[in-house]
Amino acid sequence: MSLNTFGRVLRFTTWGESHGPGLGAVLDGCPPGLPLRAEDIQPFMDARKPGTSKYTTQRKEADAVRIMSGVFDNADGQQVTTGTPIHLMIENTDQRSKDYSEIAQSYRPGHADYTYDAKYGIRDYRGGGRSSARETAARVAAGAVARAIIPEVTITAFVCELGGDRIDPAAIDFDEIGNNPFFCPDPAAAKRWETLVDNARKDGSSLGAIVECVATGVPAGWGAPVYGKLDSELASAMMSINATKGVEIGDGFEAARLAGEQNADAMSPGTDGKPIYASNHAGGTAGGISTGQPVVCRVAFKPTSSILTPVDSINSAGEATQVRTKGRHDPCVGIRGTPVVEAMMALVLADQKMLHRAQCG
Amino acid sequence: MSLNTFGRVLRFTTWGESHGPGLGAVLDGCPPGLPLRAEDIQPFMDARKPGTSKYTTQRKEADAVRIMSGVFDNADGQQVTTGTPIHLMIENTDQRSKDYSEIAQSYRPGHADYTYDAKYGIRDYRGGGRSSARETAARVAAGAVARAIIPEVTITAFVCELGGDRIDPAAIDFDEIGNNPFFCPDPAAAKRWETLVDNARKDGSSLGAIVECVATGVPAGWGAPVYGKLDSELASAMMSINATKGVEIGDGFEAARLAGEQNADAMSPGTDGKPIYASNHAGGTAGGISTGQPVVCRVAFKPTSSILTPVDSINSAGEATQVRTKGRHDPCVGIRGTPVVEAMMALVLADQKMLHRAQCG
Amino acid sequence: MSLNTFGRVLRFTTWGESHGPGLGAVLDGCPPGLPLRAEDIQPFMDARKPGTSKYTTQRKEADAVRIMSGVFDNADGQQVTTGTPIHLMIENTDQRSKDYSEIAQSYRPGHADYTYDAKYGIRDYRGGGRSSARETAARVAAGAVARAIIPEVTITAFVCELGGDRIDPAAIDFDEIGNNPFFCPDPAAAKRWETLVDNARKDGSSLGAIVECVATGVPAGWGAPVYGKLDSELASAMMSINATKGVEIGDGFEAARLAGEQNADAMSPGTDGKPIYASNHAGGTAGGISTGQPVVCRVAFKPTSSILTPVDSINSAGEATQVRTKGRHDPCVGIRGTPVVEAMMALVLADQKMLHRAQCG
Amino acid sequence: MSLNTFGRVLRFTTWGESHGPGLGAVLDGCPPGLPLRAEDIQPFMDARKPGTSKYTTQRKEADAVRIMSGVFDNADGQQVTTGTPIHLMIENTDQRSKDYSEIAQSYRPGHADYTYDAKYGIRDYRGGGRSSARETAARVAAGAVARAIIPEVTITAFVCELGGDRIDPAAIDFDEIGNNPFFCPDPAAAKRWETLVDNARKDGSSLGAIVECVATGVPAGWGAPVYGKLDSELASAMMSINATKGVEIGDGFEAARLAGEQNADAMSPGTDGKPIYASNHAGGTAGGISTGQPVVCRVAFKPTSSILTPVDSINSAGEATQVRTKGRHDPCVGIRGTPVVEAMMALVLADQKMLHRAQCG
Repeated sequence: MSLNTFGRVLRFTTWGESHGPGLGAVLDGCPPGLPLRAEDIQPFMDARKPGTSKYTTQRKEADAVRIMSGVFDNADGQQVTTGTPIHLMIENTDQRSKDYSEIAQSYRPGHADYTYDAKYGIRDYRGGGRSSARETAARVAAGAVARAIIPEVTITAFVCELGGDRIDPAAIDFDEIGNNPFFCPDPAAAKRWETLVDNARKDGSSLGAIVECVATGVPAGWGAPVYGKLDSELASAMMSINATKGVEIGDGFEAARLAGEQNADAMSPGTDGKPIYASNHAGGTAGGISTGQPVVCRVAFKPTSSILTPVDSINSAGEATQVRTKGRHDPCVGIRGTPVVEAMMALVLADQKMLHRAQCG
Repeated sequence: MSLNTFGRVLRFTTWGESHGPGLGAVLDGCPPGLPLRAEDIQPFMDARKPGTSKYTTQRKEADAVRIMSGVFDNADGQQVTTGTPIHLMIENTDQRSKDYSEIAQSYRPGHADYTYDAKYGIRDYRGGGRSSARETAARVAAGAVARAIIPEVTITAFVCELGGDRIDPAAIDFDEIGNNPFFCPDPAAAKRWETLVDNARKDGSSLGAIVECVATGVPAGWGAPVYGKLDSELASAMMSINATKGVEIGDGFEAARLAGEQNADAMSPGTDGKPIYASNHAGGTAGGISTGQPVVCRVAFKPTSSILTPVDSINSAGEATQVRTKGRHDPCVGIRGTPVVEAMMALVLADQKMLHRAQCG
Repeated sequence: MSLNTFGRVLRFTTWGESHGPGLGAVLDGCPPGLPLRAEDIQPFMDARKPGTSKYTTQRKEADAVRIMSGVFDNADGQQVTTGTPIHLMIENTDQRSKDYSEIAQSYRPGHADYTYDAKYGIRDYRGGGRSSARETAARVAAGAVARAIIPEVTITAFVCELGGDRIDPAAIDFDEIGNNPFFCPDPAAAKRWETLVDNARKDGSSLGAIVECVATGVPAGWGAPVYGKLDSELASAMMSINATKGVEIGDGFEAARLAGEQNADAMSPGTDGKPIYASNHAGGTAGGISTGQPVVCRVAFKPTSSILTPVDSINSAGEATQVRTKGRHDPCVGIRGTPVVEAMMALVLADQKMLHRAQCG
Repeated sequence: MSLNTFGRVLRFTTWGESHGPGLGAVLDGCPPGLPLRAEDIQPFMDARKPGTSKYTTQRKEADAVRIMSGVFDNADGQQVTTGTPIHLMIENTDQRSKDYSEIAQSYRPGHADYTYDAKYGIRDYRGGGRSSARETAARVAAGAVARAIIPEVTITAFVCELGGDRIDPAAIDFDEIGNNPFFCPDPAAAKRWETLVDNARKDGSSLGAIVECVATGVPAGWGAPVYGKLDSELASAMMSINATKGVEIGDGFEAARLAGEQNADAMSPGTDGKPIYASNHAGGTAGGISTGQPVVCRVAFKPTSSILTPVDSINSAGEATQVRTKGRHDPCVGIRGTPVVEAMMALVLADQKMLHRAQCG
């Protein structure tokens, strides 16, 4: 079933619950000889980790990654991958199980509480257990390794809309993304979002967001026909992230509103024999295979389901109740979802590069 | 790699090109004992087949399905599945390879012509070869079998927006879907679309569409955490269909614009111990597992890339050219995509039902 | 589940029953640009096909392969693979379903009759349906394509023991294999086997055989640690062939009787930097990865279960009966198993070559 | 590629090297609600663990298993599986990396040293790294969980031949297996083996062994046709164990020497509607599906490759050298392979039970 595994030839399997001893990812199939130290992974973990601003959950986690296997010193004394499974482990250190005692019996609307119980007859209710977004820490760690497999590719994700407030496309400056707590490439929007998120937090409410991810440097030819389409792989990857409800490649839903000639990405001859494109409505794929243009996708995150505002619900005995989710929560999960979207893009592209090599040499 | 295979325990593999001798699907893992005759599959084929109105391609294909294996007469003389692979084969009968001679050397923008060549160094250019939407005939055949595995579920797909013109949600009447050539549940919209599509065709242009699919009767508990989320499976399935560029579950991108309390689907106790939901923003999933509400997804189809309007392009020698795609094409591929969306929903849900049974008995 | 699929990146799926309209293999993931015509496959089919001597079943099948997809003419007018699924189809032409009417209700001992009924509650009893060795025709077709992926490798299988009578290892001459109806590399043994098989046939009995397969030219480095061991892949492949009950790599069970120093394959430096081995007890693998020596495996085929000698059995009503299997059967299935063993070796090695390329470039 | 993963719906992935910080197995797809504590797993670990007698390696490992995820207390306060991935982790405590410094540059014949270098260009040479039989500790842990999924099945493995000395089949007493350090069901043979193994150890040599495994209680109907044959799954599982070179089901290679009527397992009607078999030559499978009889397989382990007797070899510079493997090694790896064979049998059967449930309800 591989329900906790993703990928085709580069495969990773994650384990762990929000309030268990820790979590991890076993990355299998990684090429040998890639330099890899925990310090190389840590910056990506730090970008996702909680408690770095007042706009995210106040849970404090070092999210320190330990490489448990799959690396060894090469002849030059440099630690590199060996081709065997790489287990990346992260300890949980700031679990406060008592915070969740109240919801052990009540189903939080929008959460997996009821569905896990309906499916399994049991759930680890502490912090959402396996359904917690804490699982994505393991993806970010695996994604950092995946980047090493695709040095030709640069991946940048950012929040392009928060609480319904869009950035100005003309104002996008990738250098700004790290200068604010929202992964926002438009400083004016970032300023507005401070107020938006602050108000949502104070109101006991929460906000949704849309994350855009751009991968440049992907050569033409990655991906595959039919069920291995790059679009399909990306959609599957992104929609496996907690709280996502939609995914688009290129113009996505807007493409459905264009006429054929508007949507066409005209080509002209480039000096290197490769086409120059007049536009990128397609988002870097045609027939499921990369075109050589930037691969662009957008992911919709719903507002955090954990809110202080009471919502009608039922308990495990089937009785009416009301749920207010106390505890430490992100007022907008889309923000911290940004590094996760980047990680999934890296994992999909690294997998596709290896698959392409398998079939086409 | 399984690039031409979809599913986890109910798996199907398709083969075939647009202008080869035929195409087919091998469906593996189907439960035994299900009544299955070619006549049971044919109505679904007929819904997708070309040439049924002036709003679709004029290619004439009977799309007659032949069951080549996996069925046998039971003790009552009824033809049923045996649990072995079911090969569903469809002959191509109306290929006109001469129509495509011009594009053998030129890359049609928006099509897979350039990317297949970039990947494989060769492509069957006749009618798009493997990248043709003709492949979806095999999915519809497999989907018809999948429906027999999930008799408790009713699946209905319809076009909810065409060329930017939306249906009126208040006017939706599922009984109307079969009364017009657009799978449109709103008769007034269907009337408007006649003009829209007609004009696009006359202008040598094309239109996009958005297809919505609703599955009722799905019990709570199908799907799985993390990489096996129902949302992820559906996204992967839908984005493997030709010309799709976006997918949403429930409110999708709109959910990103709601506040937490607006997006919450409040629950109250039902008489059967199951919750009654006040709304279905989530589209029938929570934490990747079905909630018992209708599963709702929407799929964006770009406008047909094959248009008569000339578009700048290059040829396989890397020289500038212009491409006008003559031949017989759908002015709006989203229309005939509707039965394919239904088929993929059926295949995903049947697979999930079987997976659930494997793990949870 | 992929129960009718084999392989990791080069995957094939077979379909079809003994007395249905035909059978086939869909080979997915094949590299593009390999010359492939039906005529290239046919010689391998002819080696396996029934009715070529009085020592095999008298069923007459042309076993003509039709390539239904996945090939196209390249710029030189040569038909080559395109990288899309290759469907190889073989029609059944000499089914005599009446031969089997008697066993519709009775379970032939050693056959899958009872177990299919126990599992599925229904079976296609004509000629054994899906459990017939006729399925292996599809493997041989797929194997012929696989050989084109590994031109550096030469694969030779032969019968090394028949009815308990072993060949003389010192007399092995690969050129003799095609000179007798037993795939026997020892002419003296072939002579003896004529009598053995003839007597078994006349007695209404049957014989077992052991097939050895040698692949030369496999470079060091194919295969993988742990669950992807070359040994494990080969064992799985060989034991999926009908009537097989054992598989060995290298010295196999005899290795269990050697002392460590006897079993060691000593190495010395070769002129090309590669080791020269003093022996090949290991059969060309160490730690699951190829050593550069010939890959050697042996496969045990039980005697044909279909015999004229009556055996006690039960019928589907659970009553005592006796079964004599009339019809046209191989007195020794191991003989015609030889080309199937070769095909599976080719499919495993081609898959491993591609996997190695994916991970190690 | 899933090279470090085994199984179809019950899947486990292992990680770890012999001298790294530890090793583990992530078991995915396990049914929920099964009681599971570390104490339930430990007895199986203890049966495999090193240093328990003078006939095995003197490395001392507690092999204490820690359950890192996938369990939670149910309403009765009992720790049970939750249906999410179960990570079983074992720390390495008695690594002595200095023992292996000598072989960092030299290739031990029969080991994976040369092949890993040929494949990956790098290897963790400490204790064989990933190729060490220490990996099997993770399998035994996973196997203990698998047993809980198949309470109807009893699995017993034992050494049936050691150094060429077979047990007396008539003397088999399963109660004796735990009374000697050889997992030997024949006390007289166990006595003889003391001398055999002692002498091999003193001589700096090593011995091979054959392990037999019997699973009773398997109902008719597990397994599947073609590539999912129970025989094929078992062969793949067993041949993935370190040092194995052959596998047989039922009579195996001996079946190839029987006449058809000798090999037939005659059936007669049982009182419960199920057949009574007169013999079990088939080893509990027909057509790849279980017959209801005990499932029997035998696995050949080569003699330990690590021996004190010097063997000619080469070093990583391609120069001639001689290798004597000092350090702490099992004189006969087959002995401690016995619990691993049991674990793999349990994992295969649990997977098959779940697969059967998926397809056949």
